[in-house]
Amino acid sequence: MKPEPSILVIFGATGDLTRRKLYPALFNLWREGLLPRDFAIVCVGRRDISPSELYRDASDAVHNFSRRRGHSQQELDAFLQRLSYYQLEFHDQQGYGGLKDYLDQVDGIWHTRGNRVFFLAVAPIFFSIISRQLKDHGMTKNHDSWQRLVVEKPFGQDLASAISLNRDVRSIFPEENIYRIDHYLGKEMTQNIMVIRFANTFFEPLWNNRYVDHVQISFAETIGVETRGTYYEQAGALRDMMQNHALQILSLIAMEPPVALDTESVRDEKVKVLRSLKILEDDVVRGQYEGYRQEDHVAPDSQTETFVALKATIDNFRWAGVPFYLRTGKRLPQKYVEIVISFKRLPGVLYFENEDLGPNVLVIRLQPEEGVYLQFNAKRPGTASMIQPVSMDFCQNCHNGLNSPEAYERLLYDVMRGDSTLFTRWDEVEHSWRFVEKIARWWEEGDHPLPVYAPNTWGPPASHALLQADGRSWLRFMTGEV
Amino acid sequence: MKPEPSILVIFGATGDLTRRKLYPALFNLWREGLLPRDFAIVCVGRRDISPSELYRDASDAVHNFSRRRGHSQQELDAFLQRLSYYQLEFHDQQGYGGLKDYLDQVDGIWHTRGNRVFFLAVAPIFFSIISRQLKDHGMTKNHDSWQRLVVEKPFGQDLASAISLNRDVRSIFPEENIYRIDHYLGKEMTQNIMVIRFANTFFEPLWNNRYVDHVQISFAETIGVETRGTYYEQAGALRDMMQNHALQILSLIAMEPPVALDTESVRDEKVKVLRSLKILEDDVVRGQYEGYRQEDHVAPDSQTETFVALKATIDNFRWAGVPFYLRTGKRLPQKYVEIVISFKRLPGVLYFENEDLGPNVLVIRLQPEEGVYLQFNAKRPGTASMIQPVSMDFCQNCHNGLNSPEAYERLLYDVMRGDSTLFTRWDEVEHSWRFVEKIARWWEEGDHPLPVYAPNTWGPPASHALLQADGRSWLRFMTGEV
Repeated sequence: MKPEPSILVIFGATGDLTRRKLYPALFNLWREGLLPRDFAIVCVGRRDISPSELYRDASDAVHNFSRRRGHSQQELDAFLQRLSYYQLEFHDQQGYGGLKDYLDQVDGIWHTRGNRVFFLAVAPIFFSIISRQLKDHGMTKNHDSWQRLVVEKPFGQDLASAISLNRDVRSIFPEENIYRIDHYLGKEMTQNIMVIRFANTFFEPLWNNRYVDHVQISFAETIGVETRGTYYEQAGALRDMMQNHALQILSLIAMEPPVALDTESVRDEKVKVLRSLKILEDDVVRGQYEGYRQEDHVAPDSQTETFVALKATIDNFRWAGVPFYLRTGKRLPQKYVEIVISFKRLPGVLYFENEDLGPNVLVIRLQPEEGVYLQFNAKRPGTASMIQPVSMDFCQNCHNGLNSPEAYERLLYDVMRGDSTLFTRWDEVEHSWRFVEKIARWWEEGDHPLPVYAPNTWGPPASHALLQADGRSWLRFMTGEV
Repeated sequence: MKPEPSILVIFGATGDLTRRKLYPALFNLWREGLLPRDFAIVCVGRRDISPSELYRDASDAVHNFSRRRGHSQQELDAFLQRLSYYQLEFHDQQGYGGLKDYLDQVDGIWHTRGNRVFFLAVAPIFFSIISRQLKDHGMTKNHDSWQRLVVEKPFGQDLASAISLNRDVRSIFPEENIYRIDHYLGKEMTQNIMVIRFANTFFEPLWNNRYVDHVQISFAETIGVETRGTYYEQAGALRDMMQNHALQILSLIAMEPPVALDTESVRDEKVKVLRSLKILEDDVVRGQYEGYRQEDHVAPDSQTETFVALKATIDNFRWAGVPFYLRTGKRLPQKYVEIVISFKRLPGVLYFENEDLGPNVLVIRLQPEEGVYLQFNAKRPGTASMIQPVSMDFCQNCHNGLNSPEAYERLLYDVMRGDSTLFTRWDEVEHSWRFVEKIARWWEEGDHPLPVYAPNTWGPPASHALLQADGRSWLRFMTGEV
């Protein structure tokens, strides 16, 4: 199903996100015939940019960052033709009147029927003001057409600011027209979590506390804070990764089967997970990489964490007693995102009597490769009856070259189609913040160490101790190492 | 654990089995240090063979048929040193006295302490006479030593002859010293069936009629009857393959978890499956390949089947309602042996509402490759939410080169160690014959077609109709085709 005719209005079009993600995603959608015939992109930014600069910028972006190769100049030109630029200071009320007129004009050229996607690829402080101006200048309600708002993370810096921001945008756009991006939800393998769980007899019956021993979710980065010191000082690993990506993945892994696959049914189940999530003060570990305080825009006595590991539980009938271990950090030895479902051993009879058998494990890799990996026990070839773990691997990236669509392709496509399943609903955001704020308050009020860890290590020892105390350890399957 | 000192006495040492299987298997065990230090092989045969002929024969056999390469001449010479030949007409009573003296003499040289494995690699008509003569000449009971009898299939031509043969050998050797070979039980992946079932949380909970839709076991050969016309005319596919290999595999797949992994506990459970096996007259299909009647030693009006397919059920709490489809045939398009466990679909909700999803499938390959293969459902990469079956493959042969031991290595090693788990107990043989005789009687007494099928096809159309009537079809995963 092709999206309806519309204009995509990108605020912050000269920024990094637009260049690295949006242009390449849009061009790929275009090439695959997934954009409507009647379609235009209006880039809005504060800089003064000529059309030829805009085209060069967009075409460089496509050349440098697109996953697909081998397009013709004609294809690119046809795409660029839909692109135009409108200069605007986000605080400047005058300019918005002009923007409205300009968009109406584009409607005339490309028959886009008043439908708009406003994509806010700008700093969060501009979310409220832009929304307000769009409303005041009559751009949020046109008869017989739709207007949708897309906001990037972070949605708020804490619960209070998220509530306040939500109040602002909700006074202008109804909930169903607000698309809060968590780009991990656009990733192929994230979308596959539900399919793997609910379309397979192998997994569905085992997906509960009778068979699952524990779950691990790791978001590991090798980079440090780079140029984002100002933002990161406010956020830290807890708000930057846990509050959104990690808890979103957790809720997809743990949710009950939804009544149906529609947006609200799925979100209803995800929220229930977030509401059932429990954590103890002693089950959170934080750390800061050595050298963080010397980074640009970082305070020399910064108390910001660049690493968090925690153990949570989900207090419901399905998951009672099953720990969910989550960790995320910067300057770790490897960049990868992986979900590990470790299954309980069978009763201690037969093969489990004497042998030290490994557990059955299902691994879902989100990046850098995308795939599914299974580890189970089989007899070792030979006359002796030794049993050893063997593994199977289904690497989605591997089979399809680099042709897995980027998260933003899926997300932009869904916004234009009006499908918000892969975006987060307000109550999901709210409950994630509640969970995270509880931890933040412990750190503020209690006496919690912030150990420094050496770059290129897996975080502070306390992270390992957290699992060791339960007789477990962090697992990593991507590289074959454990 | 190394086997105790012993002499392996091979009757029929100039035959094909000895050359193709026994010599290479023994040499490989030797190289791997799995034979006792005090060990000898006495080859018994009717032909007059000089020591140098024997050595050349054995060394050619090792060169031509061993799975392992790169042995030195010294290794081979050390092995051949243990080999000697004794000429004997199996009917000639006199000769057995000499054989006894000869074995005692070998005991003196190699310190083999009176322990004997008598391996009957001869036509079944000699089983009784050889056993009798061994007894009459005092070779079956020596104080402080053991004597074991190994017999190759077929064990009887029907129930009556099997009972009679069993009576003969059991009057001489106790059941626990009789090793009835079904070489499929020695294959790596056959041994893996129990491990896969009972050492994995992924599979054990699903192994019942709540989750399994049906099971298929295929034994496909590309060759015709070749030089074995005389034997095959008596046997046919039903007795040649179904009675032993196919029913043995079936019983391993279907048995309840044994109390322990010891021989008798496992066999107890296998027999229970064979006793619970039910079949209806209309659920058996036979066929004969075009050209069979022109083969050597085949009657021009032969009614012998070269193909059988059947649907059986197992009337117990675990398997009630789950069909087991078995087929075997000659002159089929592909040589392979494969077990397919096809799982039930999940309830018709969510992904199963609209999409035509494939079932989850577990495949255990016995040959030519050895491995395990899983098929499950995942999202197809792309912006559309299409679900498709994906597969994972764990090929044991592939990982280990050709180093999976041959079935006979395992079986010979187990005989010498006194472990008969991978051999068939009399009651298994008996119940297999009972099942097969029921079918044979239907064919004799009723009006059952024996359709001719073209070589290089998958048997007569009735074989496909058997499954089509149940809304199913024969599956083949080995080649990627279905």
